[in-house]
Amino acid sequence: MTKTSLSLQDIKSAAARIGTYITHTPLLRESKMDKSLGCHVYLKPEMLQVTGSFKIRGALNKILSLTRKELDKGIITSSSGNHGQACAYAGQLLGIHTTVIVPNDAPHLKVENAKSMGADVILWDRTYEERWKKVHAEVEEHGYTIVHNYEDFDVMAGQGTIALEIIEDLADVDTILVPIGGGGLISGISTAIKESNANIKVIGVQAAACCPYYMSRQAGERTKAASMRTIADGLACNFPGNNPYPIIEKYVDEIVTVSEEAIEEAVRAVANDAKLIAEPSSCVGIAALLSGAVSTRPDEKVCIVLTSGNWDIDRIGSILKKEHVEGVL
Amino acid sequence: MTKTSLSLQDIKSAAARIGTYITHTPLLRESKMDKSLGCHVYLKPEMLQVTGSFKIRGALNKILSLTRKELDKGIITSSSGNHGQACAYAGQLLGIHTTVIVPNDAPHLKVENAKSMGADVILWDRTYEERWKKVHAEVEEHGYTIVHNYEDFDVMAGQGTIALEIIEDLADVDTILVPIGGGGLISGISTAIKESNANIKVIGVQAAACCPYYMSRQAGERTKAASMRTIADGLACNFPGNNPYPIIEKYVDEIVTVSEEAIEEAVRAVANDAKLIAEPSSCVGIAALLSGAVSTRPDEKVCIVLTSGNWDIDRIGSILKKEHVEGVL
Repeated sequence: MTKTSLSLQDIKSAAARIGTYITHTPLLRESKMDKSLGCHVYLKPEMLQVTGSFKIRGALNKILSLTRKELDKGIITSSSGNHGQACAYAGQLLGIHTTVIVPNDAPHLKVENAKSMGADVILWDRTYEERWKKVHAEVEEHGYTIVHNYEDFDVMAGQGTIALEIIEDLADVDTILVPIGGGGLISGISTAIKESNANIKVIGVQAAACCPYYMSRQAGERTKAASMRTIADGLACNFPGNNPYPIIEKYVDEIVTVSEEAIEEAVRAVANDAKLIAEPSSCVGIAALLSGAVSTRPDEKVCIVLTSGNWDIDRIGSILKKEHVEGVL
Repeated sequence: MTKTSLSLQDIKSAAARIGTYITHTPLLRESKMDKSLGCHVYLKPEMLQVTGSFKIRGALNKILSLTRKELDKGIITSSSGNHGQACAYAGQLLGIHTTVIVPNDAPHLKVENAKSMGADVILWDRTYEERWKKVHAEVEEHGYTIVHNYEDFDVMAGQGTIALEIIEDLADVDTILVPIGGGGLISGISTAIKESNANIKVIGVQAAACCPYYMSRQAGERTKAASMRTIADGLACNFPGNNPYPIIEKYVDEIVTVSEEAIEEAVRAVANDAKLIAEPSSCVGIAALLSGAVSTRPDEKVCIVLTSGNWDIDRIGSILKKEHVEGVL
């Protein structure tokens, strides 16, 4: 049965459901970054997660909640990459037929990874709307179950398990910084946090080049972003989701934005100081601290969620060398 | 009192001594690499260690073993980088005056890091012998205690704590691959392993461009390498150490070599599959599996020790982009 709400209990259930399949990623104390970021820095490195991204948490929780009949028909999603890979991996792991609709200009690595995990990959129109039309046409024809990357409450619950791990490893965390793309991740995290300990601050970060949640909060209503052209391609989504939006408005303390330059600087900082390959969308939280978009006390314990590392490494190489890199969309 | 031997008990004592200061780095199961490396792949990512390298383990164990009088006079070492940084960090942590003699063409990042941690950094001749002459001159003048990067048994004991963590996290590991530079790391690891469970294989890996331990094993006596010019600059050492050599001959099952090309390929594989920034010297174990220098069964549980990640990131960027990168020495 499709869930229609999200609670801390749902997230705890998700953790129990997916626990044996995923990695409890380590919480890394990065004291070397304290000075430049202005706080006590903790990183939650989900690029070390199975599939190189947190998305596996939500995908697995959704699939493990399906009926036998639904599983037999298979699943489908549309994704700019990491969510598609997660669905492909989960499908292969559980023996479920998986179809992924991918923008026809998606990074090569993401497409190949999904294929190598046995998914049917359909390259389709680059616009979000056209790809979802294609999803619904496929559902009509084959009876697949949709695994939506941010509208689905089971997916949100899976992503929220990150917060349970953070609290388990650092009960006195003060603040958590979370990238916002479609809004599924921060919906899960903020629900888990605020229903556990309302004193912990949750701050969402968007690329200034594509920041519908930021704009919507300013406007007091859901507002469409004019462009999705950002180097943080994993976050490119131009309109707040139906289901995440009210959760984010209820539970997220603050939403800030960061420039493309700050994001690239953050990719270098993560490589240099934390020795991790982070894709740009992963680094908006670091960028927010580096650029001063978020103010912190020097003794504040701040956990920054790094979501993924699945960019083509030659493009990561260009950022490390301070060479110009174009946004994808 | 200066130690003159190494045992499992020394390594257990080291673990107790340094435990509160270091990170028990996670053992990462990288199933994505199984196919290309031909085994069940586990990584021990010491670039996630304090100071970005395993070297802090040995430096701390040495310093924490000194007398108050020795501590008051301060310590000195010569190091191509990571060991120097580790001594600088440990010195700062414990309030000990630290001097580091560094080759005058060492990577900028390593020099700056050591300085930023309060060490006196002396840039000196690029040859190993000249730098150690300078160390002894400084000792003569100031009464410093030498913290040798591989001849010192306390340093070896500290490095060996990596093995205790591996066994704790994966008791049924079959094989451990370890880079060999001066030989301190593999002396510690092989002692801990062989005195715990002689069935676990320990394989040492050197850059073919500078492989004195490999040559010495072939020749049956300590043999000097003609060159130290390798991209794996952290391993550049042209003659087997007095103290490590007999330990390595006793406990290391096999020594293999890898090409410069295989090392660069391994840096890319670690970035792409494991999302970690590894400097070339870190990657010789991966290179040995990629190139077939080490043969494994598909179900063999192989732990590859990744030692460090402290290269300038623009040079890492060049490797990721498959651009030509010169060896340093």
